Amino acid sequence: MCQLLGMNCNTPTDILFSFEGFHRRGGLTDHHADGWGIAFFEGRGCRLFLDDKPSADSPVAALVRAYPIQSENVIAHIRKATVGPVGLANTHPFIREMWGQYWIFAHNGDLKDYHPAPGQYFRPVGSTDSEAAFCAIMENLRQRWDAPPPLHELWEEVQSLTESIRAHGIFNFMLSNGEFLFAHCSTHLHYIVRKAPFTTAHLLDEDVTVDFANVTKPDDRVAVIATQPLTDNEHWTRIEPQQLILFKDGQPLYCS
Amino acid sequence: MCQLLGMNCNTPTDILFSFEGFHRRGGLTDHHADGWGIAFFEGRGCRLFLDDKPSADSPVAALVRAYPIQSENVIAHIRKATVGPVGLANTHPFIREMWGQYWIFAHNGDLKDYHPAPGQYFRPVGSTDSEAAFCAIMENLRQRWDAPPPLHELWEEVQSLTESIRAHGIFNFMLSNGEFLFAHCSTHLHYIVRKAPFTTAHLLDEDVTVDFANVTKPDDRVAVIATQPLTDNEHWTRIEPQQLILFKDGQPLYCS
Repeated sequence: MCQLLGMNCNTPTDILFSFEGFHRRGGLTDHHADGWGIAFFEGRGCRLFLDDKPSADSPVAALVRAYPIQSENVIAHIRKATVGPVGLANTHPFIREMWGQYWIFAHNGDLKDYHPAPGQYFRPVGSTDSEAAFCAIMENLRQRWDAPPPLHELWEEVQSLTESIRAHGIFNFMLSNGEFLFAHCSTHLHYIVRKAPFTTAHLLDEDVTVDFANVTKPDDRVAVIATQPLTDNEHWTRIEPQQLILFKDGQPLYCS
Repeated sequence: MCQLLGMNCNTPTDILFSFEGFHRRGGLTDHHADGWGIAFFEGRGCRLFLDDKPSADSPVAALVRAYPIQSENVIAHIRKATVGPVGLANTHPFIREMWGQYWIFAHNGDLKDYHPAPGQYFRPVGSTDSEAAFCAIMENLRQRWDAPPPLHELWEEVQSLTESIRAHGIFNFMLSNGEFLFAHCSTHLHYIVRKAPFTTAHLLDEDVTVDFANVTKPDDRVAVIATQPLTDNEHWTRIEPQQLILFKDGQPLYCS
């Protein structure tokens, strides 16, 4: 199964600790050998690292592990190919521009008999069901609004689009424009909100501990979302199947 | 001044030798401290590395120097900020999707009083004149065609759009969709086509020599395009001011 990792914060934060455990699921502690990617928003800009090598061997993953990029929104994905061959064009996350903002999307699952018509504004480059779903969501939003709508209206529209797409299969996904992050669960997705008083966390996949009290300010708030919990001494909240959550400023803002 | 580097080949080729000299112009042998970026097409996919650090110090540049990515089309840019603050959203190259293809653009120069109307299909995320010009070119192409047109028609349209934009100032640029690469010169741009019989090349910026005969096959053909020649023992062709060239399969296909 693919793995998703997301982070949404109220202040730019590095994802090194979470990525340390996560990237090992790309071919070392789990079987995912079909590429991986990670997108970091920095202000309106976005940095997207993609690699079609397993993340446990990837020189790009080695760079990301060593480079403390400070970001308010991050989406990472490790791929186990189901629909579409292995290759860069089929590597998540995918990027598009809409309303003068970059949008990033990654998906875990598979959609059966899902062939949306080519859009006016957005079309897939690769051959995955995932990029087709991303383009369909973007196309519908762009057709409806010429500029960013009020957030609650956007939320309701994404919820309705998600309902129609998940009728085709498993649709765990994350979607962000650098201001907020949508996370939808079909099968497995968990999150944790870290805020003061910060404590110590210990990775599940590796014997690494961090004391967040040493690396945070009292007002920091960081939501981390992952397919499976990454630490073994914290309480992760399971996102329920069919539940969509909009994270903003490091916490859930809207939940279905 | 910003620096541009492009490569267009008839077979996937790494750009390590050219990048070795080029990246040193990002703050070491020349004064360019405002970020840099490089895009590699691999099939339909595209890998884009951006950094707002000077390329001579950048960990991302260190990765690119060590990682022999094989690509048929590459565009790299070192930025000296003129219009728009330093930051990731203003770092070239820029990426968009059109007709189910990724398109990459980088610009060296500056455009005065250039404020195209926001497009239907493409809008800038950052605040540079460069991204505005890229979006304007893409918007015009997309408005005119719903799918890729015959190459010569596309060539003529890009030529006409370039003429109207360069009336605003200096407009050295490169544009690629992974199949071909446009290079337009306002002030400085040079190219070389390397093909059999391959010989030895020596970098201008560093005492590094490569014997291409050892790393190529007889049918390989590689065009390298750069603001200034990168080697001191080869003949580089100067692209004339106002000249647009379309490179395909490692050589000029159309020249204005």
